[in-house]
Amino acid sequence: MSFDLLITKIKELRNPTVAGLDPDFDKIPEFLKSEAVAEYGESLEAAAEALYKFNTGLIDALCDIVPAVKIQCAYYEKYGWQGMRTLSRTIKYAKSKGMFVITDGKRNDIGSTMEAYAAAHLGTVNINASETEPFGADALTVNGYLGKDGIAPLIKICRENDKGIFVLVKTSNPSSGELQDKKLESGMTVYEYMGELCEKWGEELPGKFGYNGVGAVVGATYPEQLSELRRKLPHTFFLVPGYGAQGGGAKDVAGAFDKDGLGAVINASRSIMYAYKKQVCAEEDYALAARREAIRMRDDILANI
Amino acid sequence: MSFDLLITKIKELRNPTVAGLDPDFDKIPEFLKSEAVAEYGESLEAAAEALYKFNTGLIDALCDIVPAVKIQCAYYEKYGWQGMRTLSRTIKYAKSKGMFVITDGKRNDIGSTMEAYAAAHLGTVNINASETEPFGADALTVNGYLGKDGIAPLIKICRENDKGIFVLVKTSNPSSGELQDKKLESGMTVYEYMGELCEKWGEELPGKFGYNGVGAVVGATYPEQLSELRRKLPHTFFLVPGYGAQGGGAKDVAGAFDKDGLGAVINASRSIMYAYKKQVCAEEDYALAARREAIRMRDDILANI
Repeated sequence: MSFDLLITKIKELRNPTVAGLDPDFDKIPEFLKSEAVAEYGESLEAAAEALYKFNTGLIDALCDIVPAVKIQCAYYEKYGWQGMRTLSRTIKYAKSKGMFVITDGKRNDIGSTMEAYAAAHLGTVNINASETEPFGADALTVNGYLGKDGIAPLIKICRENDKGIFVLVKTSNPSSGELQDKKLESGMTVYEYMGELCEKWGEELPGKFGYNGVGAVVGATYPEQLSELRRKLPHTFFLVPGYGAQGGGAKDVAGAFDKDGLGAVINASRSIMYAYKKQVCAEEDYALAARREAIRMRDDILANI
Repeated sequence: MSFDLLITKIKELRNPTVAGLDPDFDKIPEFLKSEAVAEYGESLEAAAEALYKFNTGLIDALCDIVPAVKIQCAYYEKYGWQGMRTLSRTIKYAKSKGMFVITDGKRNDIGSTMEAYAAAHLGTVNINASETEPFGADALTVNGYLGKDGIAPLIKICRENDKGIFVLVKTSNPSSGELQDKKLESGMTVYEYMGELCEKWGEELPGKFGYNGVGAVVGATYPEQLSELRRKLPHTFFLVPGYGAQGGGAKDVAGAFDKDGLGAVINASRSIMYAYKKQVCAEEDYALAARREAIRMRDDILANI
């Protein structure tokens, strides 16, 4: 019902980072693309199969050093239902290798519809007497624009299944301030207010390390806001995107951590997935390159906490 | 690049409503469930197949009187990738029957990730030299919390493929005010500000009936705000959920329309899908019951515009 499992893995591996699996067919190694196209033609099946192979290579190379993967739904929906099958297979594979799985879906809706999303990604579904897990992640990113009606169904599923959610608070993109930095009458910004809601919503999902099951997404590209939110939201665990390709560095994310070096997990996607393009290595060694970059990133972050 | 196609269909059929296809395996007629379970066992395949049959029955019964369907992603994700295959098949079937298809996904992300969602739902994807449509709806609902970075990729795809988006502004749920009604320093509420952004973003997608390709979701359960937004956002087309099961009536939605009776499309999901449970009829006649309710709803709304 909280992030205890994630925090335990972070402590075990002494690594507060998460590898993003956001693969794009156009960007993955040529040999994976040509193998899949040879088997399935130029089709969504081929793309989905190539992405699955790419992901399993990364997971194999990362699972003993990186505690978690963040799987971005958009890159799977892009390849239709075949892509969604790869999403499901990737989650199962990562879990079989002991990784904590965050599905990055930024889902949002209300009432029974939000219950459907919660069941889909974090819960189970009954088909008559048979219970089955549609996707089965450990945590889901969500958007809180609709208020508590969109969060309550998730809290229920998190409590029942020992899962967590990350609510968007201050996102890493340049125009995040367009709404999120707006000042409310109270003097608080929209993102500060959303952070406060996370802290409040999380009270229903307490964890043994002091962090609740309602976390917050706060971008590495806004280091000041990150430090400020760390102080103001002592029970809210942070998922921090924006390290690496988006420009955030280890110094920028240092403020996300508490005095024990906990309280946050830092995500990098492109810089790990496509590390082979920046390193002097064959594309066949993309997974090894990813492992080297993941180690570099871990050490970079640990050295600055 | 706007809602011209939707508005044309609304005028042709003289019906400003949309039927929501949000089917839940637990709630659809027994004969569809048992047929599917007999063929596929108690599995996600069975659920997905039953939902597809249910949907095609509804589409057949509605396509000559209702201009559009709104397909809620959550109810398809709930049944895994098999459910997503039903989402894809349902969209294709509805389009083959001449209906305008709105995918209700409330998607949101930034940059290349949002491009992936846009390609998935409104655009095409290239697998080497082959171009394919992953889901192929006419419009998508989106959440604007991340600002213009999350909207720009959609605007590009809408312009290229003649599609539209609906941004969440004032949602129909009881706790929508938790964030959306908060007053900004400027005196404007968050939802009013989001509405203004829609009006501004929409300028890039002008339409021939005066409505741009960036629409807004505004709930029927807030009639005052609906009328007020209609006045303030003259070029923003409204998707109005909350009629029927959620408690909104024809008088509540009247303010969504302009003086020509255009400017909005009113959605009902449960009251149409499950009309057979309220009417004296066999469950085998669920589609006829849905048609009767859709006609009643249309006449109810037209009588009050």
